[in-house]
Amino acid sequence: MNVDEKYFKNITIRERAIFEGAITMGALFHQFIGTPISSESVDSLEKSIADAMTLQPCINKVEINIDREILGKIENEFDYISLTGEMLDVKVVSDYSDKRAVIRLKFIAELNYPLMFVEEVY
Amino acid sequence: MNVDEKYFKNITIRERAIFEGAITMGALFHQFIGTPISSESVDSLEKSIADAMTLQPCINKVEINIDREILGKIENEFDYISLTGEMLDVKVVSDYSDKRAVIRLKFIAELNYPLMFVEEVY
Amino acid sequence: MNVDEKYFKNITIRERAIFEGAITMGALFHQFIGTPISSESVDSLEKSIADAMTLQPCINKVEINIDREILGKIENEFDYISLTGEMLDVKVVSDYSDKRAVIRLKFIAELNYPLMFVEEVY
Amino acid sequence: MNVDEKYFKNITIRERAIFEGAITMGALFHQFIGTPISSESVDSLEKSIADAMTLQPCINKVEINIDREILGKIENEFDYISLTGEMLDVKVVSDYSDKRAVIRLKFIAELNYPLMFVEEVY
Repeated sequence: MNVDEKYFKNITIRERAIFEGAITMGALFHQFIGTPISSESVDSLEKSIADAMTLQPCINKVEINIDREILGKIENEFDYISLTGEMLDVKVVSDYSDKRAVIRLKFIAELNYPLMFVEEVY
Repeated sequence: MNVDEKYFKNITIRERAIFEGAITMGALFHQFIGTPISSESVDSLEKSIADAMTLQPCINKVEINIDREILGKIENEFDYISLTGEMLDVKVVSDYSDKRAVIRLKFIAELNYPLMFVEEVY
Repeated sequence: MNVDEKYFKNITIRERAIFEGAITMGALFHQFIGTPISSESVDSLEKSIADAMTLQPCINKVEINIDREILGKIENEFDYISLTGEMLDVKVVSDYSDKRAVIRLKFIAELNYPLMFVEEVY
Repeated sequence: MNVDEKYFKNITIRERAIFEGAITMGALFHQFIGTPISSESVDSLEKSIADAMTLQPCINKVEINIDREILGKIENEFDYISLTGEMLDVKVVSDYSDKRAVIRLKFIAELNYPLMFVEEVY
């Protein structure tokens, strides 16, 4: 079966790049939010999130930065917290044919919300 | 702040509808996969998934069907299983301005894969 | 196969009740943290969490209260938030043979931590 | 506040070790099930799961093996699958005071179920 031919003829190349990047960003957030995290584990978590989410269709690269400042001042006696959207800054680079979409997740303080948007598409 | 003005000027109305629907489909899958499920709990899980995911930006409706046939023949002595992509058939209806995208998740046996695609956009 | 005979002979009845309740509480937290939630969806989410987690071995009942006060004052323009441990108050009642363990999850402000503990065992 | 004194006086040292190990095993399963995985990403996922779950109270070590054989014969054109309980073999080592509990998660083919049990406690 030609998947693209059968299931994706109704959208443009550019739309496909956006579509796949958006799926992966939604997936990333909801798969990993809640994971126990500290300054000690942040590097391996970032790497595994990037490795896992890059497997998805059309995903060329995932850059993820978890806020070390928040991790540096954890205020409980257990020395770790649960990963939240406030700590995440992520770029998902999605390529389809000759088009690329860069999807961004960034916590916008003014909105008090981890916003997902299309940073670039070309 | 006008969020649309600031963050979404670089994509079309149609692309925005696709983008938001795709985020929600990726989110839905990765939030709920793994949930314990049986014939007894399937109705309340479907309802809560639809209620939760409809909260996301631009989402007008979520229709979800979890495969009762699979649940009807659970082959272990614990009488429940973990939710997997194979059991899911979902439509996410995403509206932005005058455009609507219907995103579909469906397990395609021939692909052995729970495919997400744009079923309709208009 | 007699599962209890083969896998659980090395712990007491009381330990088994605690063990199964603890598994379910850890599972509950990490399955559902991150779910989109608002005042509109809270009832169905509570019901589905209770229905799902009651399926697990030895679980007799799950009582869950998600903090309506927090949901009543959501401070963003999207009118929902992601479920966090701070909003949860849960009791998991686990029975094995003639013993019962009540496992509690409660956010303890003084600890700044969603603590899981054995509230009662008898 | 002395957490142990206030919240854990009603259980034994041995029960506490079992309790904390069980929470972590339930948490591990429901946090990571559904993660995209392939032969390429398995090492980093194993490492990050172990690093994350070792942060939890009383957890001394987490040993995790994801089934490479299953990953070696993925039968779809996307070259990855979602992590399921069938692929997992995990040991969580939980220490409290002078007691240790080793909690095991292992897929038992005869049960068709990923069983969690107390492998050792001493």
